[in-house]
Amino acid sequence: MRYFAYLEFDGTAYCGWQIQPGEPSVQQCIEDALFTFLREKVAVTGAGRTDAGVHASQMVAHFDLDEARDCDWLKSKLNGILPADIAVRRIVRVRPDAHARFDAVRRTYRYYVSMEKSAFSKRYCWYLPNRPDFELMNQAAAILLDTVDFTSFSKLHTQTKTNNCRVDRACWSELDDGRWVFEISADRFLRNMVRAVVGTLMKVGRHQMSVEEFQDVVDSHDRCKAGDSAPANGLFLTAVEYPDNIFTE
Amino acid sequence: MRYFAYLEFDGTAYCGWQIQPGEPSVQQCIEDALFTFLREKVAVTGAGRTDAGVHASQMVAHFDLDEARDCDWLKSKLNGILPADIAVRRIVRVRPDAHARFDAVRRTYRYYVSMEKSAFSKRYCWYLPNRPDFELMNQAAAILLDTVDFTSFSKLHTQTKTNNCRVDRACWSELDDGRWVFEISADRFLRNMVRAVVGTLMKVGRHQMSVEEFQDVVDSHDRCKAGDSAPANGLFLTAVEYPDNIFTE
Repeated sequence: MRYFAYLEFDGTAYCGWQIQPGEPSVQQCIEDALFTFLREKVAVTGAGRTDAGVHASQMVAHFDLDEARDCDWLKSKLNGILPADIAVRRIVRVRPDAHARFDAVRRTYRYYVSMEKSAFSKRYCWYLPNRPDFELMNQAAAILLDTVDFTSFSKLHTQTKTNNCRVDRACWSELDDGRWVFEISADRFLRNMVRAVVGTLMKVGRHQMSVEEFQDVVDSHDRCKAGDSAPANGLFLTAVEYPDNIFTE
Repeated sequence: MRYFAYLEFDGTAYCGWQIQPGEPSVQQCIEDALFTFLREKVAVTGAGRTDAGVHASQMVAHFDLDEARDCDWLKSKLNGILPADIAVRRIVRVRPDAHARFDAVRRTYRYYVSMEKSAFSKRYCWYLPNRPDFELMNQAAAILLDTVDFTSFSKLHTQTKTNNCRVDRACWSELDDGRWVFEISADRFLRNMVRAVVGTLMKVGRHQMSVEEFQDVVDSHDRCKAGDSAPANGLFLTAVEYPDNIFTE
């Protein structure tokens, strides 16, 4: 029996989603919690890895159980055992061959910035003392919709076969409370990609790079040309989408 | 020259607004920050005390400076020095006799509850495993609008002369994200009053006390008849209001 868990986590205390020896990971917490009440070792596969300190309001992971279990019961048990900074929002039965990572067709990230100090958002927002030019950043961001190869925004020396992504949304917008958010959706993301994109857009917003130079960075396929990665704490994985047919046999 | 500072703080790490020997208080942090860059000891007077762990999205405090200072400069200096969980939103010049506590005409608190575990709201929300009857709690809350003496919801042995308050709003409502919030406004609040009100309303919402019994608790003027105080972390001071004429000479 295969299950999808829809999870939420505050990444502040974690090395990321993925298990790393000697480091606290979200994946490890969930495997430990399942073991605590099922007394069986259950492997959990996430929709993707996230960097240290990055949050998720929607991460999806699959796992298999020998016995059929009630989804609400699983959710309630897990929430009782998991630490306060990891929550299960929903558990659903899926087809036995459904895969949280390989079947995901679209992922969405949001990056939050604020130009005002706030007592509540330090963990969840990049504080910018000066307001960048969001209009200009949106002109540059539109280039990403026509970009195929994202090597310029990829961590070096990864094992992926291609650095091609289909970005179908990349836009800054203002929120009611004065914060701004960058929303980006794509079929897949490379490691560190969103933070590298945001960091490079910020150079445009600060008039340290023109929109044309941003296009040159994209075309160069050279990570060294792009800007520094934006801090992890402003970034949230907010959606992972699947085709409907994986949820029913 | 007297100034009003509009402040925001995450109360998790503090013993409350008010200075207490050997305990970290918000008031002390602000006096320390003013001393750091002005090199003079400046006393800061708040609109009221808050309990340990209670938050504020709008606390107001006044202080006097010998020299006239630019308000934006003061705000920026303070925000640079204050810890991440205290922020200055605004500083304004007021009449020299304006008083943050005695001139306040209305205060508003909000109390947040959630029936779903969330990875992000543990510090800011009371988690309720079962949904209380909000309709019934609103029937009971309406009684507070006709109540004068709030002794039943006051901390015992305080030094206030009367326990009379004029509550003009007391209502639960649902938020877009599924959380519920109780908003209560009054000319003044007694120590621990909002948490005692919320804790007692919760007994009504859980069918452990009828609306009529809630009325009896109010009429008894006996704190022992009321319910336990709700946890501090769900409570926010959200507004302190003043008459317009204190801001200009």
